Amino acid sequence: MLTDLFTPSVQHWLDLAGIFVFATSGALLAVRKNFDVFGIAVLAEVTALGGGLIRDLVIGAVPPAAFTDLGYFLTPLVAAALIFFLHPEVERINGAVNVFDAAGLGLFCVAGTTKAYAYGLSLTASVVLGLATAAGGGVLRDVLANEIPSLLRWDREVYAVPAIVGSSMAALLIHFQSLNAFTSGVAALTAFVLRLLAMRYGWRAPRAWHRRSSAVEEV
Amino acid sequence: MLTDLFTPSVQHWLDLAGIFVFATSGALLAVRKNFDVFGIAVLAEVTALGGGLIRDLVIGAVPPAAFTDLGYFLTPLVAAALIFFLHPEVERINGAVNVFDAAGLGLFCVAGTTKAYAYGLSLTASVVLGLATAAGGGVLRDVLANEIPSLLRWDREVYAVPAIVGSSMAALLIHFQSLNAFTSGVAALTAFVLRLLAMRYGWRAPRAWHRRSSAVEEV
Amino acid sequence: MLTDLFTPSVQHWLDLAGIFVFATSGALLAVRKNFDVFGIAVLAEVTALGGGLIRDLVIGAVPPAAFTDLGYFLTPLVAAALIFFLHPEVERINGAVNVFDAAGLGLFCVAGTTKAYAYGLSLTASVVLGLATAAGGGVLRDVLANEIPSLLRWDREVYAVPAIVGSSMAALLIHFQSLNAFTSGVAALTAFVLRLLAMRYGWRAPRAWHRRSSAVEEV
Repeated sequence: MLTDLFTPSVQHWLDLAGIFVFATSGALLAVRKNFDVFGIAVLAEVTALGGGLIRDLVIGAVPPAAFTDLGYFLTPLVAAALIFFLHPEVERINGAVNVFDAAGLGLFCVAGTTKAYAYGLSLTASVVLGLATAAGGGVLRDVLANEIPSLLRWDREVYAVPAIVGSSMAALLIHFQSLNAFTSGVAALTAFVLRLLAMRYGWRAPRAWHRRSSAVEEV
Repeated sequence: MLTDLFTPSVQHWLDLAGIFVFATSGALLAVRKNFDVFGIAVLAEVTALGGGLIRDLVIGAVPPAAFTDLGYFLTPLVAAALIFFLHPEVERINGAVNVFDAAGLGLFCVAGTTKAYAYGLSLTASVVLGLATAAGGGVLRDVLANEIPSLLRWDREVYAVPAIVGSSMAALLIHFQSLNAFTSGVAALTAFVLRLLAMRYGWRAPRAWHRRSSAVEEV
Repeated sequence: MLTDLFTPSVQHWLDLAGIFVFATSGALLAVRKNFDVFGIAVLAEVTALGGGLIRDLVIGAVPPAAFTDLGYFLTPLVAAALIFFLHPEVERINGAVNVFDAAGLGLFCVAGTTKAYAYGLSLTASVVLGLATAAGGGVLRDVLANEIPSLLRWDREVYAVPAIVGSSMAALLIHFQSLNAFTSGVAALTAFVLRLLAMRYGWRAPRAWHRRSSAVEEV
């Protein structure tokens, strides 16, 4: 019940949409790193399904959804194939990709929080797993591409804040027994809009005290 | 029954052979990266057992086989000790190592697929886990050594294709209820030979469209 | 019983102390890598809880302790906040941090071994998981920071030996049914002192044969 934020069919399509846009970001990085077609497919799969995989292993939901739903597995392959042929066009519409990625962030942090709670975790732990679901795939993507995860870097717009806000709203809605299709949609939308604003206005999180005025040493 | 492709004893020795050659590749990379003796042992263990560990966590087979069979744990240590003392000789016979690694690839993709299916996964998911079993250890090896996984790189011979072919043959044999010691041996042999051919003739997978003629940017 | 080395309350405070010092080492590396405040918090959490998380996934103790005990989750955030404001002072007392980290190593290798054994693993596998509990968080920390794990590097003092000694002592105590608060304290203390001695006298493990006299190629 908790996991059925929307009717099952709508929820499933929203999941696939989030998977698709995350896969696109993985495939684009793979193209930039000059990977071959299998590297593109692997990075698309890992980026799209990695966050949910971590969540499912932690809560003991095995085999993870990534391995039981054929649509979850095929969607990243479609994204990888499109990027393989169309990547110059897609890079030109990079803004659109970022908007979709922000939408995936919103959907995944809410879905991750509610699924973790449905498996018996505390509200705090559910918020953490909501963040892990939304950000975990991107972290695995960057580790496999041998880069420092954007999630951690100072010179990228904040990604954690929108996910934490969305997850926390979902947790508060659960706590006050007000979680339904509409309110969880509002939580996802809030995370989505916050992320868009962060990118639009270049919001960055502070670095450690005393460092702000010093020159950037290494990035 | 499905997991007993061969008599248990033969299967066990084949597993140990695959573990040994994968461990050798991990220990050799550790020597090249100038790791100490513990780094060599850790990288040998992770390379040899990492793929099966990922598979076992995903299908819920805990504790994983890597932790329940003493032979699985000791074999990489033997490989690490041999490389520690003999690595100049082994690097000279690098071709032999590659042949053994290809044999490990063949054995692991078939064994991974059949074990995943025996734990209730679909045929498609079993193929994916066969690939993960065969390639996962090498990916973890490269991540720990702070290198881009060879699996993903354009400038390495294809590794994914032989594993996918072997896993798919195993899945088809399961589907047509024809999996036995002989047919699964054929599937493993096919993956083995394909990998040998890929190395012999330098088969590489294509990079993204429009990129083929451009200069290599970063590797 | 096995996991209650000390009275539950004392054990819990020792766990939190170990988590705190490991989190400090993660937060300090994040500051050096110029991460933002969320990167500091994430690296503190991963370093402090990653080793136990790996152990719990392997032994099937889900959800892992990291997600069921609020104190485990909040302690790294406290450490991250302190480092955020006080890192110049802390780097000056780097020696103190290393002492605490050695204490965490001692506590975690013994606690990891006993918990693994309590979940039905063999003594050998329990020793391996004791090492993984003590060293796993540091490995994840270095991978996320895009560095070669110090555990593997030749030019760092040995970390594996003290952890293996502590874990093996715990396993022997279990084998001879002599594990109690006092003897497990001795095992943790032995690992702690060995690590201090390794740092004090610059103990390093050998690299592969024939390499010792050659110049360091890459570090």
